[in-house]
Amino acid sequence: MSAPHTDVEQVEAANTAFYEALERGDFETLSSLWLTPSDLGVDESYHDPADAGVISCVHPGWPVLTGRGEVLRSYALIMANTDYIQFFLTDVHTSVTGDTAIVTCTENILSGGPAPEGHDDELGPLVGQLVVATNVFRRTPDGWKMWTHHASPVLAENDREEGDETPG
Amino acid sequence: MSAPHTDVEQVEAANTAFYEALERGDFETLSSLWLTPSDLGVDESYHDPADAGVISCVHPGWPVLTGRGEVLRSYALIMANTDYIQFFLTDVHTSVTGDTAIVTCTENILSGGPAPEGHDDELGPLVGQLVVATNVFRRTPDGWKMWTHHASPVLAENDREEGDETPG
Repeated sequence: MSAPHTDVEQVEAANTAFYEALERGDFETLSSLWLTPSDLGVDESYHDPADAGVISCVHPGWPVLTGRGEVLRSYALIMANTDYIQFFLTDVHTSVTGDTAIVTCTENILSGGPAPEGHDDELGPLVGQLVVATNVFRRTPDGWKMWTHHASPVLAENDREEGDETPG
Repeated sequence: MSAPHTDVEQVEAANTAFYEALERGDFETLSSLWLTPSDLGVDESYHDPADAGVISCVHPGWPVLTGRGEVLRSYALIMANTDYIQFFLTDVHTSVTGDTAIVTCTENILSGGPAPEGHDDELGPLVGQLVVATNVFRRTPDGWKMWTHHASPVLAENDREEGDETPG
């Protein structure tokens, strides 16, 4: 696509770059797309009681991961256990307010694990998943960076009846 | 508690007020805690291509709900189907950057549905749930208001192995 102009276009380009880095297993690019306090001009040697720019991440069915160490380790683990993954994003909605943007989207995921022992030329079994994500981005001098990512499984109607009665 | 002073204290007070309104089934207060474009000085008759201040919500296992109409209707439905609900919040972490704050927390939920037919003096069966939430708040002249809420079930380890290999 042509170079993005509006805030919404720039945020959606950053969101797309995030999923493309996951599809390629490109850990360096993925890491560079996550916010760091220094992106905000915060001296990382100073303990900020407001934890400005501290990132968090929830993978489907997981507890919360907080801080670059936990979050990036989880992606290293996921990449090590994923030989193939493709995201088909639908229902992408972006809300930009000042220097923060929220993207919600449906991740239609097709993924495959490592090949079975002794079948290195094969893919592991492919698994499809329906996941929804809320991605929060922060404007930085180096572009929009991800501040938090929360992804969760969309449960089938019959699995959902209890959820239907449970806020949170 | 005493009046909150710092941004973090004010944000965590708004987060607590949100769950207390749910526990009381107080729809008016709950509605007032969600951001509106007018909180941001946006003329709601103007279509903002950036959708500034447009809210979104994901209940555990649900798809994304976008805009005050969908979000508030979901809470009216949930309140109508919930006679009792208590949130025990743990692992509360807050990151404030400028006029935006992200709160992550674990919602230890105990809830009960309506009483069985003809037993109006009883509670329905109580259900416990382990849920994690990412709540994004925006600073407004009227205090911190919720811009997005994403809650998801924490799945047991054996249910999670697939999730362990699946980013999103």
